[in-house]
Parts: sequence; structure tokens; C-alpha cells
Amino acid sequence: MEEKKLNNSVIKELMEKYKTIWALSHFGSLAHWDLNTYMPEEGIESRAEALAKLAVLSQKMFLEKDFLSLIKKAENEKELNDYEKAVIRLLNRSLKYYQKLPPEFIEEFTKVTSEAHVAWKNAKEQDNFSLFAPFLEKIVELVRKKAELLGYEKHPYDALLDEYEEGLTTEESENFFSQIKEPLKNLISYIKKSPKYKEEHELEKHEYDREKIKAFANFILTYIHYNMKHLRIDLSPHPFSTYIGKGDHRITMRPKDNFAKTYSSTMHEYGHALYDIQTHEDLHYSPIGGGTSLIIHESQSRFWENFIGKSKTFLASIYGEMKKINPEIEKYSIDDIYHYINLVKPSLIRTEADEVTYHIHIIIRFELEKALIEGKIKVSELPRIWKDKYQEYLGISPKTDKEGVLQDIHWSQGSIGYFPTYSMGTALSALWKKHIEKELGKIDDLVKTKEGIRKIQDWLKEKIHKHGATYLYNELLQKSTGESFSAKALLDYLEEKYKAIY
Amino acid sequence: MEEKKLNNSVIKELMEKYKTIWALSHFGSLAHWDLNTYMPEEGIESRAEALAKLAVLSQKMFLEKDFLSLIKKAENEKELNDYEKAVIRLLNRSLKYYQKLPPEFIEEFTKVTSEAHVAWKNAKEQDNFSLFAPFLEKIVELVRKKAELLGYEKHPYDALLDEYEEGLTTEESENFFSQIKEPLKNLISYIKKSPKYKEEHELEKHEYDREKIKAFANFILTYIHYNMKHLRIDLSPHPFSTYIGKGDHRITMRPKDNFAKTYSSTMHEYGHALYDIQTHEDLHYSPIGGGTSLIIHESQSRFWENFIGKSKTFLASIYGEMKKINPEIEKYSIDDIYHYINLVKPSLIRTEADEVTYHIHIIIRFELEKALIEGKIKVSELPRIWKDKYQEYLGISPKTDKEGVLQDIHWSQGSIGYFPTYSMGTALSALWKKHIEKELGKIDDLVKTKEGIRKIQDWLKEKIHKHGATYLYNELLQKSTGESFSAKALLDYLEEKYKAIY
Repeated sequence: MEEKKLNNSVIKELMEKYKTIWALSHFGSLAHWDLNTYMPEEGIESRAEALAKLAVLSQKMFLEKDFLSLIKKAENEKELNDYEKAVIRLLNRSLKYYQKLPPEFIEEFTKVTSEAHVAWKNAKEQDNFSLFAPFLEKIVELVRKKAELLGYEKHPYDALLDEYEEGLTTEESENFFSQIKEPLKNLISYIKKSPKYKEEHELEKHEYDREKIKAFANFILTYIHYNMKHLRIDLSPHPFSTYIGKGDHRITMRPKDNFAKTYSSTMHEYGHALYDIQTHEDLHYSPIGGGTSLIIHESQSRFWENFIGKSKTFLASIYGEMKKINPEIEKYSIDDIYHYINLVKPSLIRTEADEVTYHIHIIIRFELEKALIEGKIKVSELPRIWKDKYQEYLGISPKTDKEGVLQDIHWSQGSIGYFPTYSMGTALSALWKKHIEKELGKIDDLVKTKEGIRKIQDWLKEKIHKHGATYLYNELLQKSTGESFSAKALLDYLEEKYKAIY
Repeated sequence: MEEKKLNNSVIKELMEKYKTIWALSHFGSLAHWDLNTYMPEEGIESRAEALAKLAVLSQKMFLEKDFLSLIKKAENEKELNDYEKAVIRLLNRSLKYYQKLPPEFIEEFTKVTSEAHVAWKNAKEQDNFSLFAPFLEKIVELVRKKAELLGYEKHPYDALLDEYEEGLTTEESENFFSQIKEPLKNLISYIKKSPKYKEEHELEKHEYDREKIKAFANFILTYIHYNMKHLRIDLSPHPFSTYIGKGDHRITMRPKDNFAKTYSSTMHEYGHALYDIQTHEDLHYSPIGGGTSLIIHESQSRFWENFIGKSKTFLASIYGEMKKINPEIEKYSIDDIYHYINLVKPSLIRTEADEVTYHIHIIIRFELEKALIEGKIKVSELPRIWKDKYQEYLGISPKTDKEGVLQDIHWSQGSIGYFPTYSMGTALSALWKKHIEKELGKIDDLVKTKEGIRKIQDWLKEKIHKHGATYLYNELLQKSTGESFSAKALLDYLEEKYKAIY
């Protein structure tokens, strides 16, 4: 029999105590899922009260003397394995936030971001940046204060990046973005000059029956996934994936997205869910069950969304089901659909961007965030600089702030330092693809059959998922493939694929 | 401005601390709802773990020194109002269970009932009482031990009844059942002799489209209820109602019940939900929000199920919607449907029984439970005595134990002392009906219009719901109507109604 991953007796004792904290997070995840799916509208007040109490209680249990001394005791244990070390690392990581951020700061941050979120929604609806600007100024100020409280070595933005991706630095991100910026700009201008370039595909214009799109999303999951007894899909205003507990994984889709968006978001969220589903069973109920690295998580969601979902052979194998959504689809060949799903065109909205231009959107966010934190630009200058950058990088520029600086929710929630993980996660996905293809053969061939898809799932489980949150993204990559992180695999993939299409 | 119901400063301080315990119960309710509606099948292990931790944590918080001394301090406050006194009463009631039942007892009880529940399911499936008997013997033993631990004045069954209905005694229940037993037996034999008596109604035989039945249940709620922003209906294996928080009320229906059962269970669960919905808003987040008395709760569910749901004028007002379920309904007149919904016939299954014979089922449970607790009968004798009693009281007898002693879930869960609240709650509902009719006019007239239904809802709110769990059932009845509890109103109602039908 294989040895248990968490086997040290002090770690086991620690995990037994941790189980109550885990239980609170279980209920928190369920409550957030419910809030976004089925909760009656007027339940919001009591839900918010309950979640606030849950957060305080969880912090209190983390900081209980017995628990802290058990962490200390575990730290002094010799010969811990990687999983056991990771447990301590992640508990200490949570403790750092609980200990370094004073309750008054958390309270102010929560209050300001709650108000800012409402202000942002209004500002976006009314297309009036000035309604949001004072809140964003306050947020930038608080976020800079947070960086100081948390501490950093070189750059205050490091402390912010670290919150979303443990150990990620400004230097690393900058290095990454400088690798992709020029090659992508060149690729985009190549595509725009292609005779096959078009701004819109006919398939975009059709109306689809919502019930049929839902049925299609359900079909997709039952087709690619091997066990629907631990996975379900529901409707919510924004698609998300959540890991409620062992054997309980849920993703959502928007009620009104068209066929292509539902398809792509379902594949994306499935990738997130599969990572959690395939965590080694010893890691459930521990802080290393599932992933905490946003880069690794995004590498999984983008993997399914882009390499499988946008693959021509995969599209061919689900063509019959697609036609059930709308008889008009029958008029289009697989090549038409493939081109539609892989259409590249500079656009204003990040979440609707294709594989190539997507990263330019992220570069713009990254450059703006860094400059804001450094105090090099002011909040009031954002709309103008935003427009300039879009013009410079993508050759288009939003007419309104609604389609520009006000489009994303992140800043209103105080999430500064999050965006880079989207791009870097996508780059990591291309590295996994490269190694899977080296070991198992072309993904386009594998996805032709359910057995091939299962081989991919097994590879991902073995190399990535089963470890949960044990390793940082670059460690995991090194350990599983022997390669170091870089943007090259992503660039090679995009070049090859899109030069073939265009 | 009206004074707040919970206004004393010590009570307010106590409620602030209680809010965390409330939050845990909020998550517990949500988790149970989810477990019965949407949770993926394989999520059960982690859900059970989380709920077990939640129970322990909740008990721990209850027994924290600060909290206990605050309860003591509140007890010494002078001039508390009824609501404030009820808060202390209910906190002490919870404390009694936490303090008198040792953790080892709770653990054993939980373990035995979990195993017994599985054994009962198997025994029922295989129609083999002997598979369940040893577990039930153990349960009876533990339940008698529980009575000793909790303490009682006259009869050990008092301690068990009290767990489900605060203050209810064996003497009171016996007195109640002795009032109804003979009159109901006489009424049943009157009905059986009527030329209109029939064993089955043609409408029972039709097949119905499930989606249409669901739509009908939704219609019923939007028709009778004034705000669907705080109420929803979903599917679950057994219908139930749950109060998750202020503005968050949910009921369920079975996925495969026929039209009549769905209709009746929806009205029933709505009655439970309305009680919680109409609690005074000052009482949310406190232990007196909603009801804890099963008799009062059942008086609300049975009120909507029987007096409104089975009313001919109400049936007439929803006749158009009924016909949408199945065109064959059109062949039947309102009189036919009224007769179908109010069909009386002795039957074997309690949950399917009509208004008249229902109480006989409860009397049988009550007599058996009391004799078991007194040690006058043995578990092994139950199947035989069960059959004898059904033969004696209803003139029919189950051929199998599946349709007999194994039919109900209660004993397998260790719930002994619960059944009497079903009958007594129904008797209380008839008392409310009597007083509503005295003050507002005939229910059959009121339910003809939405305004009339709203008048009933307002009366229930004013006399019952707004008080939450402040009063015991007999106190509340006295306070709101000046009358004492008895079975007379129930018997008068049944006599009048069913002598008119038959």
C-alpha cells in the first residue's frame, strides 16, 4: 500500500484541528455558490451577515494558541515530505495575512471596496468615470498601504502580486510581458493583413434557444468528463468554478450567453474544476487540496478552453450535438465553425478577446497598475492613457469609458496584481501542451476519442492535479517537465496555429 | 416609532454574541437544503464531515464562559418583555441539552441512529423487520437513557415529548388522543356506510407531465404568496420547508408525485414557510426568529393544506391552471375535483392519509411508543401489534411490514415523541380557523380573492407569526384567541365537512 501523503503524526494532529477551519471554508464556498445561483434576492442581507461572521470566526480559530503552537511544533519536525512541508507553508501564508493586516485595516478595506464596487457599477452603467474615480483613488492608496504592511523586497507591487500568486515578483512579470509584447504585436499585424481576416463571422449573428444551449453545455460535460456524480453546472451572472469539498465540484454558465461563449466558458471552468477533482485524495480537508496558485489554475482552464475546445478535431466530434442547438448551424462546415471559434480581431473587451489579442489586454492592465502603484500616473489620467494604449497596441480605441477603463470588475474590488496571472497561466498551459504532445502525441489526435481525452486527463492528474497546492507554479513545472517557465511555448503555438489559419 | 422587540442592553449584547452561533445555523440550514436538492451525489462524505464539525463548534460556542455569564447576567435583568424572556428561555433550553447529554452519549446516539437508518432502509426494501429489530431495540434503550439524563417529573416519555414540543407531557397527549379516538372511529364508520363512499377516484389514475406539475406548483405559490423575492421551490426526495435567513425561505416538492400530492405538499410546506416569513423583523438573527414549536408549525402547514388547499372555492379559482396540467382534467367538474381532493378511506400509509383517518395513524404510533418506553411491549412484538391495531381502528391490516411498522423514518432516526405534534398541530389549526372565521368571515369566502387570502395571511401574522418562538403553543393560543387548547374545533370541523360530503 502506498504511504499516505500526510503521514507525520504532528501534521496529522494539525490537520485534525484544521478540519474545523476547513469546514468553515466548505460552508463559505457553498454560500458563495448559492449566492450566485439560487439564493432568493432578499436573502442577501442575512447571507452577508453570516459570511462576515464566518470570516471573523475563521481568523479567530487560525490565531488560537493551540493551533499556532501546533504549527510551530510541526515546523520543527524532521524529514517532512513535500506535501507536509506545503501544509506548513500555506498555513503560514494565511497567518501572515491575519497577523500583518490589522483588523482596522481589513475593516476599512472591506468597507471601501464594498462602496467602490457599487460606485463602479453605477459609473459603468452611466458611462461616467468620475463617479468611480474618488473610490479608485482611495483603493490605490489603501493597496499601497497594504503593500507596506505586508512587506516586500524590491517593489511594492511585489507584495500585491504575491497575494494572488505566491512568490511572483514585478521583475518576473515584466520579464514575461517583455517576451510576448513585440511578437504578439507582429502576429496581430500579420493576421490583419491576411485576405482571410474578417471583423465578424456570420455565425455570431444567429439567435439561439437558451434551453438548447444549456442542454449543449450539459452534453459537453458528460462527453468530456468521466463522472457526473461529482460535478454539476448551473446558471449564474458570471461563470465560475468552485470546489466545495471532496466529490463536490460545481461550475456555472451565464444564462444569456450565445453558443460560442457558453461553449468556451464551459470548457474553461471545466479545466478549473478538473484540477480540484483530480487532487490526490489524501489532500482533501487540508490547505493543499485543490490549487491556490492562480497561474497553475489558469493553465488548466485555458488548456481546456483553447487546446481542446478550439481544436478542429474536437469540434468535429461534437458537430452533431452543435447542430441540435440550431438547425442553421447545418449550413456551416467544420472549417467554418473552426474559423468562427478561432476568429482573431482586435477588440475592446478583454473577456471577449481571442487567444492572440487577449494578452495585449493584460499587458495594458499590468502597465497601468504598476504605474499607479509607483505613483507615476494619477487615477484621473487613467481614461486617457487607457485609450492611448489601446490605440497604440491594438489600433482601436474605446469611444466610451464603459468599453474602456470601466470594463473590468477587479479594481473596484481592490484586486490589483491579479491580471498578470491570466497571461502567465495561459503561457504555462502552452508548456503543458508541449510536454503532453511530446509524451502522448498530438492533442488534435488525442481528442478524437474519449480514450484520448482520458489519457490527457490522466497526464494532467499525474503531473499537476494530484499535487494540489503543494508546489509553486515554477517548481511544479520544473518537477513535472524539467523545463523552466518562459513564454516561448505560447508564442510558438500561437505563431504556428494562426499562421496556418490566416 | 414602535419600540424594538429586543431592546434591553444586556439582551442586545447577548444577541451580538449569538450572531455567530446564528451564522453557523444559517450555514447548517443551507447545507441541509443543498444536500437534499442540488449537491452532487459524491459530495456526501465531505458534507457529513463539515456538518459534524459545525455541530461541535456550535456547542463549543454555546458553552463559552463569556456567553454563559452573559446569559446569567440577562436572567437577572428586571422588566424584560416577553420577547426578551423568550430569548433567555430558548438559550437555556439549548444549554440543557448541551449540558445534560454527555458527549459520549451524543456520539453513541449519533452512531447508532446512523447505522439504524441504513438498517431500516434495507429492512424496508427487503420487507424484513428482523434486519431492523436489533437496531430499534438499541434505540429504545438509548432513548430511555436519554429520558433519564434529561429528567422528567411523571413519565419518561415526558422528556421525549419535550424535545419536540417544549413542555408537552404524556398526560396532555393522552388526554388529547382520548378526546378524538372514539369520535373519529364513529365518523369513519359513518363515511364507509355512505353511498358516496369509494376506494379510489378516477382522477388518481391519470399520468401527468412532470414539467407541467412543476409549473403548477410554481403557479400556486405566485398565486397565493405576495412576494416571490424571498421564497423559492425546488425538488427533493421528501418535501420540506427551511428558513435559511431573513428574506431567504425555501420549500421543496418531490420530483415524481402526482398532481394531487404535489398540490397538497406545496400548500403544506408553504404554511410552514409563511410562519417563518412573517416573523417580526426584530427577531431574525435571534433564537426566537421563526417557530420552534412543532405544534404551532404544524398548525400552519395543515391550515394551508386543509382549509385553503381543500376548499371548494379555492379549487374553483385555480381550476383553469389545473386544466393546463392535463387536458383530461377538463372532463371533471369542480365537484369531482373537490371530492377527489377530499376522498376519505382507511389506508395503510400515514403520509397518504386523508384528514379524517390521519389521526388514527398517529394514535397508533403514540400508543406503541408509550408502551415501548414503559417496557410494556417488546420490539419483537411490534409487527404483530401494529397489524392488530390497524385492524381494530381502521378495519384494514397491512400484508407486509413494509406497509406497516417499517413505513415511517422516525424511529430509525431515534425520533420517539415526535408523532403527537402532527395531530395536535392539526387540532390547533382548526382552532385558528374557528377564530379567523369569527373575525373575518368564512374561509371559503375569503379564498375567492387574492385580497381575501391576504387578509388571512395578515391575521396569521398578527396573531401567530410575528411572535416567532416567543410563546408555547397553549400560551399563544390563549393570548391570541382567549381560548384553551382542545380537540373540539377539529372534531366539529371534520364532522360538519365530511357529513356534508358523504
